[in-house]
Amino acid sequence: MLTKNHIKLITSLKQKKFRSQHNLFVVEGIKGIQEFLNSSFELHQLFAVDDIFGVDFIQISEKELHRISNLKSPNKAIALFNIPSNSHIVTKGLSVALDDVRDPGNLGTIIRLCDWFGIQNLICSNETVDCYNPKVVQATMGSLTRVAVNYVDLNVFIDDYDKAVFGTFMDGDNIYEQSLPSEGLIILGNEANGISANIETLVTQRITIPRFGDLKATESLNVATATGIVLSEFKRSFTEM
Amino acid sequence: MLTKNHIKLITSLKQKKFRSQHNLFVVEGIKGIQEFLNSSFELHQLFAVDDIFGVDFIQISEKELHRISNLKSPNKAIALFNIPSNSHIVTKGLSVALDDVRDPGNLGTIIRLCDWFGIQNLICSNETVDCYNPKVVQATMGSLTRVAVNYVDLNVFIDDYDKAVFGTFMDGDNIYEQSLPSEGLIILGNEANGISANIETLVTQRITIPRFGDLKATESLNVATATGIVLSEFKRSFTEM
Repeated sequence: MLTKNHIKLITSLKQKKFRSQHNLFVVEGIKGIQEFLNSSFELHQLFAVDDIFGVDFIQISEKELHRISNLKSPNKAIALFNIPSNSHIVTKGLSVALDDVRDPGNLGTIIRLCDWFGIQNLICSNETVDCYNPKVVQATMGSLTRVAVNYVDLNVFIDDYDKAVFGTFMDGDNIYEQSLPSEGLIILGNEANGISANIETLVTQRITIPRFGDLKATESLNVATATGIVLSEFKRSFTEM
Repeated sequence: MLTKNHIKLITSLKQKKFRSQHNLFVVEGIKGIQEFLNSSFELHQLFAVDDIFGVDFIQISEKELHRISNLKSPNKAIALFNIPSNSHIVTKGLSVALDDVRDPGNLGTIIRLCDWFGIQNLICSNETVDCYNPKVVQATMGSLTRVAVNYVDLNVFIDDYDKAVFGTFMDGDNIYEQSLPSEGLIILGNEANGISANIETLVTQRITIPRFGDLKATESLNVATATGIVLSEFKRSFTEM
């Protein structure tokens, strides 16, 4: 039975403060929940309209599901999983770092891109939006089960990092004309302000995606689409070598 | 003075039915409105808290602005522009066609990408989300003033099109290994279902963005990020020739 305390807990998890306090986050929908069940994430509690997954669950009505869901069209179930502790950051191969990305949809898309391009580590500045925000979890389409997301003091992390540090800037070198390595860190910046001045001083190679439109064309690309293009270039370039 | 009729008109323009009926759409914020004022779009009516643009306007209070705005944090002004009639479609160079893209954020990002990569024509199936939807207009960041968006019967349009027709599929040829032309049509499909069966029969070259993650990795990329990667490849490839 769905109790008042369940409702209170689930709705509180929209806020980062309560996610940290309870060490829990919400996953919705059959496909998403199944991906988390198949992963190393630990299920805390499952609410469903039916026995869908073959694990212990609390049966709820469609009406109750609508009441606790963050979605306009909830899909049969909502689950609470434990937030894992920060994993060991593997700096082998290519890694991506985000310097203060704020939009949950952008972070979700970037996690999905990391998954597609085989990037195992996504390093986020502490100011970057929380990857357990329900909108991020929903946007990752399960990729959060395969990409390790770590929140760090980005200055300290990059200071300790010993390979090439790439940053995207409007005035960087044309990415199509660079020889791109198979190892390194690629930094993407905040939606409005780009990479912060502090982090900029730590960048060893400034790159840019050239603009082909005329001079009046848009001043910048969305950070998630820029991430996609940059990752595609690194992977293509390395594969051709 | 802001009248009841103004409020009724502006709020009605959230719906496509009323945008078509009045032939008007909404642009918000100083930067966006300025870009439309500098373009060939015709201003119908401007509401602002102050004389910002040096053109005729109806003065409103911040409270009234919040009442008529679609945004959480409206920025000083809201303008109604006339919807232009379908422009002549120029099929020279590269064009992009969307087969039933439904998400306003995706369409907005794709319009911005077309602007960045110098694609002047975006051809949309009649089922694709309306580019004058307020969420699309906001997401384009002014790129809608530079990219001509036309809604057509996509079957008929492609039937008449006489250059290569590229479509993105999971089982297409590796885009990194193709010689890509400077002219042609690139089709991107619906978020959930991809390119429809009808349109698929008209595709002359099936392409794919290779996945580098392991077999369990995400099944697909977001349509806007896929558009970005494909356009980057076409433009890079042609520039190198």
